[in-house]
Amino acid sequence: MTARLLAQPFPIVTPETDAMEAAQTLAARRLPGLIVCGEDGRPYTILPGSQVLRFLIPSYVQDDPALAGALDEQAADELCRKLVRSTVRDLLPKPADLDELPVVDADATSLEVAAVMASMHSPLVAVVDELDGNRVIGAITVSRLLDHLLPAGPVVR
Amino acid sequence: MTARLLAQPFPIVTPETDAMEAAQTLAARRLPGLIVCGEDGRPYTILPGSQVLRFLIPSYVQDDPALAGALDEQAADELCRKLVRSTVRDLLPKPADLDELPVVDADATSLEVAAVMASMHSPLVAVVDELDGNRVIGAITVSRLLDHLLPAGPVVR
Repeated sequence: MTARLLAQPFPIVTPETDAMEAAQTLAARRLPGLIVCGEDGRPYTILPGSQVLRFLIPSYVQDDPALAGALDEQAADELCRKLVRSTVRDLLPKPADLDELPVVDADATSLEVAAVMASMHSPLVAVVDELDGNRVIGAITVSRLLDHLLPAGPVVR
Repeated sequence: MTARLLAQPFPIVTPETDAMEAAQTLAARRLPGLIVCGEDGRPYTILPGSQVLRFLIPSYVQDDPALAGALDEQAADELCRKLVRSTVRDLLPKPADLDELPVVDADATSLEVAAVMASMHSPLVAVVDELDGNRVIGAITVSRLLDHLLPAGPVVR
């Protein structure tokens, strides 16, 4: 089976997308991250959910999470307000921190997808269509791929 | 809100759990990873889905994913058979590769949970009960936490 058939629709944001809207999308759709595309529809990077938290939580609290215990729910609301009037660009790590983006072509086989995920330790790959200017057509999660590769069986509760 | 209230049930495996069963659980429940506990119920590490693929895909193919294009579906079945008669212990990275495990106490506030996720770049934390020998009572995903922290709003399609 090719990546085209394994790919599922995935919300796509651009660096100009409102930061609050992007974070709310992660939350409401229970996603581990979002694909960030340029205005040309080509994948640019992935915004992991933990990166949103890195933007919200002051770095001195990240260095010593016990300090967060002293902050109340009102402080949480104030921190979240940082997302208003910010964009996805503000959430992204500085270029030096950008991981290489896991991308496969729509014609890649399931084992090629697996090899890319394995080598990049990634839970998600973006699927692009080379014949259509490398625009993103969807994404494949590691669980979706395993579901395709493995026989069905009993599940740990 | 404390980690106890945010925590959701999460399948727990031990190093002795059958590798195929663990992989099938990831697949069927669409999880990004599993919590691995010792026989004493204390969290030991997290098994990310990409680690299952690292076990299945030969390292020379990981180094050059294009090679996977030459393998057919029968080869995929043979690779998956490596999971039969293996255990979760076989899937785990060698100790040198183990990331520090993100864990919070049941009484941690939502901002403490956020600080731990942010500082460890983790999409998931295990929640333990200190008063019950640090046994795992569940887990919190980054999307679940954001859903609690953020106001509801429009969602990117």
